[in-house]
Amino acid sequence: MNPACELCRHDASRVLWRDDALRVELVDDADYPGFVRVIWNDHVREMTDLAPGDRERLMRAVFCAEAALRRVLTPHKVNLASLGNVTPHLHWHVIARYTNDAHFPQPIWGSRQRTCDSEVLAQRAAKLAELKVVLAHDLETTWAALSGQGR
Amino acid sequence: MNPACELCRHDASRVLWRDDALRVELVDDADYPGFVRVIWNDHVREMTDLAPGDRERLMRAVFCAEAALRRVLTPHKVNLASLGNVTPHLHWHVIARYTNDAHFPQPIWGSRQRTCDSEVLAQRAAKLAELKVVLAHDLETTWAALSGQGR
Repeated sequence: MNPACELCRHDASRVLWRDDALRVELVDDADYPGFVRVIWNDHVREMTDLAPGDRERLMRAVFCAEAALRRVLTPHKVNLASLGNVTPHLHWHVIARYTNDAHFPQPIWGSRQRTCDSEVLAQRAAKLAELKVVLAHDLETTWAALSGQGR
Repeated sequence: MNPACELCRHDASRVLWRDDALRVELVDDADYPGFVRVIWNDHVREMTDLAPGDRERLMRAVFCAEAALRRVLTPHKVNLASLGNVTPHLHWHVIARYTNDAHFPQPIWGSRQRTCDSEVLAQRAAKLAELKVVLAHDLETTWAALSGQGR
């Protein structure tokens, strides 16, 4: 726990699923409905600061998020990134991308390409309730299967 | 193999290490000595299009690259990203970041913050020969250990 780190604190209202090691949140970004963040609970800087088993655990959650985004939102592409330049506390961005979103084909941190149509954004946002249910269910099922294997 | 995909072809001169599944290359970016790319050989779009064992294999190579970058270049932070908006063929960017690099604290795809001092860049570039040796050695050792476990 680093008191200066915003990811050591957390906003429980945004958490879709959590366990002792990590939590999964929906990011509130008007341009990107379908932006999920997977956050390691402890204040750890880099993936290679984690033990290999913990890296695998974190990536399983990232891939669960990717699979749920694809199933519910059918994006053109999924972007995955662990950056942490501003907040060096391990967290993964899992982002549904579309050819008509605000930055495509740039990363969402690149230069803005257009304003995405508000009706299109509303249609995507309308699927977030389903995304939350699917993602929490998939994480629970994956973790139950892992603990059944003694992991 | 997709004939229109630039990552289905490859420039052998940049490859540091490869096996049947993936290859690891050093990216030629004057602003970012210590920019490694890990590329899945087959034309696959998303991580969740790979079987779980193959995802793990690819991530192991990414984490080998991160560890080698940290050991040889001691960056402030490592950035990891699988985007593929322009070239939807699985590849990971593994990037050594420094507080005085061209875009810090922005991602390298964000707005340029400064011109990094040319002497500093030359000092980092001077370590790339060592990085190549360390990274190829670490990948070889990791893969030998995995095949010893029947993986």
